[in-house]
Amino acid sequence: MPVTTRRKSFGSDNHAGAHDEVLHAIAAVNVGDAPGYGHDAWTASAAEQLRTAFAAAGAFFVFNGTAANVLGISLLVRPFDAVICTESAHLNVDECGAVERVLGNKLLTVQSPDGKLTPELVRSRLTGRSDEHRAQPRVVAIAQVTELGTCYSLDELGALGALCRAEGLSLYIDGARLGNAAAYLNCDLADLAAHADVLSFGGTKNGAVAAEAVIVMREDLVAAVPFQRKQQMQLGSKMRFMAAQFTALLEDKLWLRSAEHANSMAQRLADGIARVPGVAVCQPVQSNAVFASLSADRIARLQQDWAFYVWDERENVVRWMTAFDTTAEEVDEFVAAIRASADA
Amino acid sequence: MPVTTRRKSFGSDNHAGAHDEVLHAIAAVNVGDAPGYGHDAWTASAAEQLRTAFAAAGAFFVFNGTAANVLGISLLVRPFDAVICTESAHLNVDECGAVERVLGNKLLTVQSPDGKLTPELVRSRLTGRSDEHRAQPRVVAIAQVTELGTCYSLDELGALGALCRAEGLSLYIDGARLGNAAAYLNCDLADLAAHADVLSFGGTKNGAVAAEAVIVMREDLVAAVPFQRKQQMQLGSKMRFMAAQFTALLEDKLWLRSAEHANSMAQRLADGIARVPGVAVCQPVQSNAVFASLSADRIARLQQDWAFYVWDERENVVRWMTAFDTTAEEVDEFVAAIRASADA
Amino acid sequence: MPVTTRRKSFGSDNHAGAHDEVLHAIAAVNVGDAPGYGHDAWTASAAEQLRTAFAAAGAFFVFNGTAANVLGISLLVRPFDAVICTESAHLNVDECGAVERVLGNKLLTVQSPDGKLTPELVRSRLTGRSDEHRAQPRVVAIAQVTELGTCYSLDELGALGALCRAEGLSLYIDGARLGNAAAYLNCDLADLAAHADVLSFGGTKNGAVAAEAVIVMREDLVAAVPFQRKQQMQLGSKMRFMAAQFTALLEDKLWLRSAEHANSMAQRLADGIARVPGVAVCQPVQSNAVFASLSADRIARLQQDWAFYVWDERENVVRWMTAFDTTAEEVDEFVAAIRASADA
Amino acid sequence: MPVTTRRKSFGSDNHAGAHDEVLHAIAAVNVGDAPGYGHDAWTASAAEQLRTAFAAAGAFFVFNGTAANVLGISLLVRPFDAVICTESAHLNVDECGAVERVLGNKLLTVQSPDGKLTPELVRSRLTGRSDEHRAQPRVVAIAQVTELGTCYSLDELGALGALCRAEGLSLYIDGARLGNAAAYLNCDLADLAAHADVLSFGGTKNGAVAAEAVIVMREDLVAAVPFQRKQQMQLGSKMRFMAAQFTALLEDKLWLRSAEHANSMAQRLADGIARVPGVAVCQPVQSNAVFASLSADRIARLQQDWAFYVWDERENVVRWMTAFDTTAEEVDEFVAAIRASADA
Repeated sequence: MPVTTRRKSFGSDNHAGAHDEVLHAIAAVNVGDAPGYGHDAWTASAAEQLRTAFAAAGAFFVFNGTAANVLGISLLVRPFDAVICTESAHLNVDECGAVERVLGNKLLTVQSPDGKLTPELVRSRLTGRSDEHRAQPRVVAIAQVTELGTCYSLDELGALGALCRAEGLSLYIDGARLGNAAAYLNCDLADLAAHADVLSFGGTKNGAVAAEAVIVMREDLVAAVPFQRKQQMQLGSKMRFMAAQFTALLEDKLWLRSAEHANSMAQRLADGIARVPGVAVCQPVQSNAVFASLSADRIARLQQDWAFYVWDERENVVRWMTAFDTTAEEVDEFVAAIRASADA
Repeated sequence: MPVTTRRKSFGSDNHAGAHDEVLHAIAAVNVGDAPGYGHDAWTASAAEQLRTAFAAAGAFFVFNGTAANVLGISLLVRPFDAVICTESAHLNVDECGAVERVLGNKLLTVQSPDGKLTPELVRSRLTGRSDEHRAQPRVVAIAQVTELGTCYSLDELGALGALCRAEGLSLYIDGARLGNAAAYLNCDLADLAAHADVLSFGGTKNGAVAAEAVIVMREDLVAAVPFQRKQQMQLGSKMRFMAAQFTALLEDKLWLRSAEHANSMAQRLADGIARVPGVAVCQPVQSNAVFASLSADRIARLQQDWAFYVWDERENVVRWMTAFDTTAEEVDEFVAAIRASADA
Repeated sequence: MPVTTRRKSFGSDNHAGAHDEVLHAIAAVNVGDAPGYGHDAWTASAAEQLRTAFAAAGAFFVFNGTAANVLGISLLVRPFDAVICTESAHLNVDECGAVERVLGNKLLTVQSPDGKLTPELVRSRLTGRSDEHRAQPRVVAIAQVTELGTCYSLDELGALGALCRAEGLSLYIDGARLGNAAAYLNCDLADLAAHADVLSFGGTKNGAVAAEAVIVMREDLVAAVPFQRKQQMQLGSKMRFMAAQFTALLEDKLWLRSAEHANSMAQRLADGIARVPGVAVCQPVQSNAVFASLSADRIARLQQDWAFYVWDERENVVRWMTAFDTTAEEVDEFVAAIRASADA
Repeated sequence: MPVTTRRKSFGSDNHAGAHDEVLHAIAAVNVGDAPGYGHDAWTASAAEQLRTAFAAAGAFFVFNGTAANVLGISLLVRPFDAVICTESAHLNVDECGAVERVLGNKLLTVQSPDGKLTPELVRSRLTGRSDEHRAQPRVVAIAQVTELGTCYSLDELGALGALCRAEGLSLYIDGARLGNAAAYLNCDLADLAAHADVLSFGGTKNGAVAAEAVIVMREDLVAAVPFQRKQQMQLGSKMRFMAAQFTALLEDKLWLRSAEHANSMAQRLADGIARVPGVAVCQPVQSNAVFASLSADRIARLQQDWAFYVWDERENVVRWMTAFDTTAEEVDEFVAAIRASADA
């Protein structure tokens, strides 16, 4: 995606820079020596804060979201296990086959119109259990927020959790945008994690430079993490700088304030285009993304000035994302451009 | 390694923080939006500078040294190939089996007293070629600076390169401390890379926060890198912050000045202990590390106040490392402590 | 599948024993010593016969069909490549995730009502090419005969081959029942292989004890096979006994006569039930399999006396397979039983 | 190894054909249909016999020795675990890196002059435990008979077992020639297995066509085997033919009689050359192998007429192996040839 203008990007929340508080926190830990590889006081403190916030057994930092997913799932699988996820899952589509390569496990995908798994969809893949010819379903992997910008309600999470417990499955949550879900659902992080065995808590898309946390909810899974993380090439030597990013995000819940803001900007955008002829919002707006369909011509015209992705070329669906630093003025300007794109 | 005092650590060059210039550069790119995943101007510029400095075909950023090694080697191997390295190689000892896990390739190790491979040592593992029962030697992987602080001379690199060409092998260089080697050898980066197919150029141990570059010398190897990097979970979304670190290191050759300083501090340390009774320097001091042997009692006493690692418990060998920010006063104080440790 | 009676099994063509000629051939090579691992004259001869029959560059024996598929595909993929196949492919469903585990490559599946891929279906997965976030489509893997008993016509194979060449893809054919396809299509093995880069030629389901051949059509792919086969644990030490099985199958085209017979028995079965009320043949009968739907009650009654598999429990679809040794009487008896199952 | 004459091969016990009883047993199970994939009565019976003989929890058939080793070890390792073995282990040298590729685990090798591990040698690799940078030693893998033809005494096995229990390690035994060890030690199979978690019991080198058994001693390890075996491409569809080979070997302990004979032939060979000038036996003769050193010239002359391998070209060490079908006359003829080789 070449950015063609100096206007605010609606392409991704990772087009934004870092939050100033994050950079300040990085600078604040740059004071002399510290033990490497996370054996420093800042890392201990940030991990402790995360464990508390999630009521978790362990919290571990990695560099990016793909790595968080792979590490998280690696804690839950035997070699012959499979992971149930949506066809549109980041895990399936956007990680260049990292699960298959690094872990060697199969993904069992299901179509989902809104990016969410349901117990019924999960059950559709629970075939061939105990059949040695089949990779064995073992992990249900969901994203909260989903790749389509939707959120699981706490009830929906509970239903998936109940299914997993009943069927001997584990639940992994890709929380690259977990903060946006907490903001939308107005709930605690611990509520979101209640039914998960492992989940990730994304920093990068919410103002960090490059940091994600893997949150381990079960004590018995913790011991393997350091080895898996190192082997998966995610152990940072100067880890205080990763921890500091979360310290900043956790300070007065900066993560929540940023997510609330981003969400509200997406809502403002959705509201702004609600009655624009020829533009239809395709997914419930439950986070910092707006999925909309409009004509290919309008998409092309808009992309001359604005940066965003076409999500589905065949259906002319675009994804517009807001970030912690998107302003109301930028949204309004973009809404105006969308409206105007019809006139051309 | 618990740091037990507020004194300067001689434990590792990654106990140091980040160079101020690196943090400044990070802040400097935190200006509004940019395309993700390295499609930004800062990344293009930093990569271009690296390509020029190394006379390379491509330069790509990853998060840490283990990842650089795995990515670099992944460009050079077929599934049934093996990598020849020293028994003491970081690749073999300190990466939790990442090559075997992520790549699935075998390491063929040789003992080396000074951490260096020689053509003769490499040849000792060139057995069973064309025998389908044997993993096939394909890559020679060396570290420059080695794990024992020694440097290959340009002649030694040339000899290994010639062997590789003659034997149909590729040469990979783990350059986690390549800057220190360039400083010691007083040569250009391109000189160090001349015989390599792929190498890494470490930033983290030389003042960066968390950034390494994989330098690809052969044009035909470049196309696979983006996919391998992504699959290996090393693609940063806000990559400008990784690139910025190298921008800082490359500015007026900060990397070289820092490496020269660290090396000189190691030399000062070695000089300072040269005539201390009961302390013997075990390896040529050719970078920012001093390997020394002294009694277990003295080691224990010193570690009460100073942070450093015992390299070989059986031989009572310790490793003392200096960093870009080690001061002459700190070295002198440490030398005095080493001297004094005999009195106790 | 517990066999509940002494009646002929319609469960699978691998429920049959070995053809007598195969056992004779095994005994015939049991004469004194021979070099191991395929360096014997019998292996050379059988491989040569196969190369000739397929107009192939190489022919290599492995122990079973899963291994043939994994080895065949391994010759065609880079680490970040993906394999396009049907959702119902043996490769996807019945190999316990072997491709993902042993090769680390992703499968991209498409729904297909008759078990066949079409150029259009393949194209539906040709997205994200050159996008580093996506596993890269590289191999089209089909089965001939398909898992649903259908056959690609030579024209259909040609169309897939043309697509592969146009799109830079390779074509792999799982030929576990390739003989049945040749019998149905009344063509040469070389015709079936004409558009493939690699294919397998199944022996086990056609009267062998345990032997499959991997047929390599491109000279440039041959050199890696011995290493890949050994690493994939498929190199037999006393390989003459594997080769002998193919020697028997190739003698006077025993493979073809057996396949023709099995096909004709399936056709006889399909003809026999054509006008049986309540029984519907679901797939074109183009090999040695009949897929039929009938009521769950009738299925249950039939399974009391006859061995066969329910293919789709939800749709009450069963698979009835014939083998080289199925007799007309057995088919007729089974037809009568199917007819009679309505009376209960 | 091209066999250059019609004389008996001393190259490997897998140069021999199959025992007639094995072929008879194969023919005997070729009676009509049977369920596939080991769900037949013959497989159940052979597995039961093996469980009884070994006092084991489970017994599973695979196609070859490399596969037995990989499957056996796969039951014992987490992703970040390492396997301690000798440098000369088949596992390390002769399996084309299958453990690293298929399992992704690291091998930690030690030099051993007689092919045996000792508690002391194992302890030399028990470093870095609990250090996340290190692959974690978890399995001790030995071969009984070793690759150098030597046998562990029961006391030596007990000592390794005790070490493993004390150190939280598992013991795997590569029993490709386990029968020869039992014959040499004059003990039961259960005695050999007493300290192992998993072991293999080789059929192929002792008269089978192509069959090995993986013997699982711990109940908790059994459940994963069917899945691992299938995923590792070792599930035979017509498994009765694999089981039948073991049925033959177990009948009246054919395996033991054959191994005793092969061992006695090796002893006869060793005795015959004991006083031949210029020929020195290099390893204790404790199985069906004789390792000897003699001049390169004599080796070359002998190889004109006799098939055998040079084990170590630098040291002029050859390996001479006997088989179940080696005759006293063949040994005597070979001894005469060895003796005569000096005259040339």
